[in-house]
Amino acid sequence: MMKRPLITLLTDFGTADYYVAAMKGVILGICPEAQVVDITHEIGPWQVAHGAWMLEQAWHCFPEGTIHIAVVDPGVGSVRRPIVAEAGGHLFVGPDNGVLSRVFDAVPPRTVRTVTAAEYFRHPVSRTFHGRDIFAPVAAHLANDLEPEQLGPLAEDWVKLSLPVPVELENGVWQGEVLWVDRFGNLVTSFAAEAFGWVATEPFQLEMDGYCTTQYAQYYGAMKVGPCVIFGSAGYLEVSLNQQHAADLLGGRPGSSVVLRRV
Amino acid sequence: MMKRPLITLLTDFGTADYYVAAMKGVILGICPEAQVVDITHEIGPWQVAHGAWMLEQAWHCFPEGTIHIAVVDPGVGSVRRPIVAEAGGHLFVGPDNGVLSRVFDAVPPRTVRTVTAAEYFRHPVSRTFHGRDIFAPVAAHLANDLEPEQLGPLAEDWVKLSLPVPVELENGVWQGEVLWVDRFGNLVTSFAAEAFGWVATEPFQLEMDGYCTTQYAQYYGAMKVGPCVIFGSAGYLEVSLNQQHAADLLGGRPGSSVVLRRV
Amino acid sequence: MMKRPLITLLTDFGTADYYVAAMKGVILGICPEAQVVDITHEIGPWQVAHGAWMLEQAWHCFPEGTIHIAVVDPGVGSVRRPIVAEAGGHLFVGPDNGVLSRVFDAVPPRTVRTVTAAEYFRHPVSRTFHGRDIFAPVAAHLANDLEPEQLGPLAEDWVKLSLPVPVELENGVWQGEVLWVDRFGNLVTSFAAEAFGWVATEPFQLEMDGYCTTQYAQYYGAMKVGPCVIFGSAGYLEVSLNQQHAADLLGGRPGSSVVLRRV
Repeated sequence: MMKRPLITLLTDFGTADYYVAAMKGVILGICPEAQVVDITHEIGPWQVAHGAWMLEQAWHCFPEGTIHIAVVDPGVGSVRRPIVAEAGGHLFVGPDNGVLSRVFDAVPPRTVRTVTAAEYFRHPVSRTFHGRDIFAPVAAHLANDLEPEQLGPLAEDWVKLSLPVPVELENGVWQGEVLWVDRFGNLVTSFAAEAFGWVATEPFQLEMDGYCTTQYAQYYGAMKVGPCVIFGSAGYLEVSLNQQHAADLLGGRPGSSVVLRRV
Repeated sequence: MMKRPLITLLTDFGTADYYVAAMKGVILGICPEAQVVDITHEIGPWQVAHGAWMLEQAWHCFPEGTIHIAVVDPGVGSVRRPIVAEAGGHLFVGPDNGVLSRVFDAVPPRTVRTVTAAEYFRHPVSRTFHGRDIFAPVAAHLANDLEPEQLGPLAEDWVKLSLPVPVELENGVWQGEVLWVDRFGNLVTSFAAEAFGWVATEPFQLEMDGYCTTQYAQYYGAMKVGPCVIFGSAGYLEVSLNQQHAADLLGGRPGSSVVLRRV
Repeated sequence: MMKRPLITLLTDFGTADYYVAAMKGVILGICPEAQVVDITHEIGPWQVAHGAWMLEQAWHCFPEGTIHIAVVDPGVGSVRRPIVAEAGGHLFVGPDNGVLSRVFDAVPPRTVRTVTAAEYFRHPVSRTFHGRDIFAPVAAHLANDLEPEQLGPLAEDWVKLSLPVPVELENGVWQGEVLWVDRFGNLVTSFAAEAFGWVATEPFQLEMDGYCTTQYAQYYGAMKVGPCVIFGSAGYLEVSLNQQHAADLLGGRPGSSVVLRRV
């Protein structure tokens, strides 16, 4: 464990309410040396898949030993289990609803446990705010060197939430979709660089929402007029405009269909 | 005082301007060991009562010895006084305009002082930004173990800002109001759990903005179709929809009338 | 260098994406003792001048030795150079596109260097995210006491981006413009207190967007009905309304013309 244990937070709480601050107060009350870093709190309300995608992009930039809390939790207070996992040298705490599962796909977890040790919770445990009453205190105790095995028994399975994988419609034609639109309007598609890296060097045609592009760019400044595709920092093909908001101008949003073909 | 003194910030400054950063820079220049945590900066501009409510929800999640700065300050530069208070084992710094008074209602302050010791201010003191020039440096000096009595004389009184309390219209019928709408669309009402906890177990009818509900739920996932009430983490009755934005779909905003009756 | 090195971040990344968190993760992986403070991430996408203005307002509130990272970088991946500068006892890291140049106008830099030492970058360096792969790791190594001269050779020149300076149209009549609208709706103009401080004590008339004011106020609470001017904390003349959003009610936005005359 690091001298200053690092805890990240990813939630759908926004920043206008007291919810995030309540979690931080609880953490720092238990582990005053913790460094708490926000990943984001702007996950769409109740959008577990959105949270899973964002966590996947961020966690591996943090050093080994970081503890990540992910709370996108429409099932709070119901029977869904809180879990703690060791994966990729990091620790993860959150509800067992799939929000952690994209990370588990990337780095198969060494252990996943159901959190049952109520002595590490904040009492009374509310039925509506496990971020404050379960996930924050459990993570803070982990930051204080509590071993995960003290939190509960091994879980045999957990909820999985897979990203949509492009489907090959016919030879050399794939249907994918938009996963995410970032602040710059870049449309991140489900075409991963591992499988579709050939787009950088071979002729292609990408169709989406009534427009079509055959332009590939290595960086934004190299883009000519009109839509281009680029492999973004997340490792997926993105549809972009240079210094313009592609999603606003071209249309397209998470879930929009994108067709890619070799030509 | 903690080894890493903890200072929270609650303001109406938003996060697009340099205002919050200026306060943090001043704090860390005086007390480099401070840990600064944002409660929120999205209090409605000049909305002192909104700030008072949000601070009330957050402060008690932090450990003893935390220093809280609250700056919602339409009277900046005028004769309203800066104050420092010891309450509930925490310290509070802000303008004497009621923004701290909800906390003082919850935990009567041991001392409230008018801050007059200009040697702890940042000079020149602007007429428009006491957050940077008075409240931030004063809090940082407190974090460096300055005693509150060195900041100024005891204040005999302070501005109080009370939350609206439900009025009993007739036997078993109360009129309350919406205090707050959170990011999820939950309508937090002025019906506190202490006085209205019977709603969880006894028949009731709640009317608001042309609709009516008799459904109580213990947690969000237990809600059936249509509006339900629930006791939220703030300790008040909330009107909610399961995974939908109740305020957008049902109407209602801070100040909207809510009528609760025993049936 | 401070015991807890202080690193600030100013970007146009927003807070909904993983971009800021990725930078923080990289920084804390290299320098776990760093204290990372956000200036803002709400610079308009690709708006270098906006970033330069905001950095100018914030940096000097931080203590000597602070390392500031500014990433508003439409030219990412192209030939524009990364630079590191020593100015005013602080360190600055960012693209050479003018985002740092307002600071350099205020405090002429002791050194400006082109960052070429790729051994301090995160590899592989993407073509789209130098914030994560170049600026964050370079700043973190500086926080670990790396000397700027180890990062690359002195630059003889750098991109400058000047603020618009009011033009004297005729004797006693100046045309300026709106630089910025803050969260409260205050219209910050290009009339700096150094040159136009006489407005506080001598008769004037300010025209903007079809309205006109001759009222000066020392603080917001002293404002009478209708628009007033005030010298704000940034050191520029601002057009404001007391507890109302001047920009929404009066019109005006960055770039709007403002005419000031002695009367």
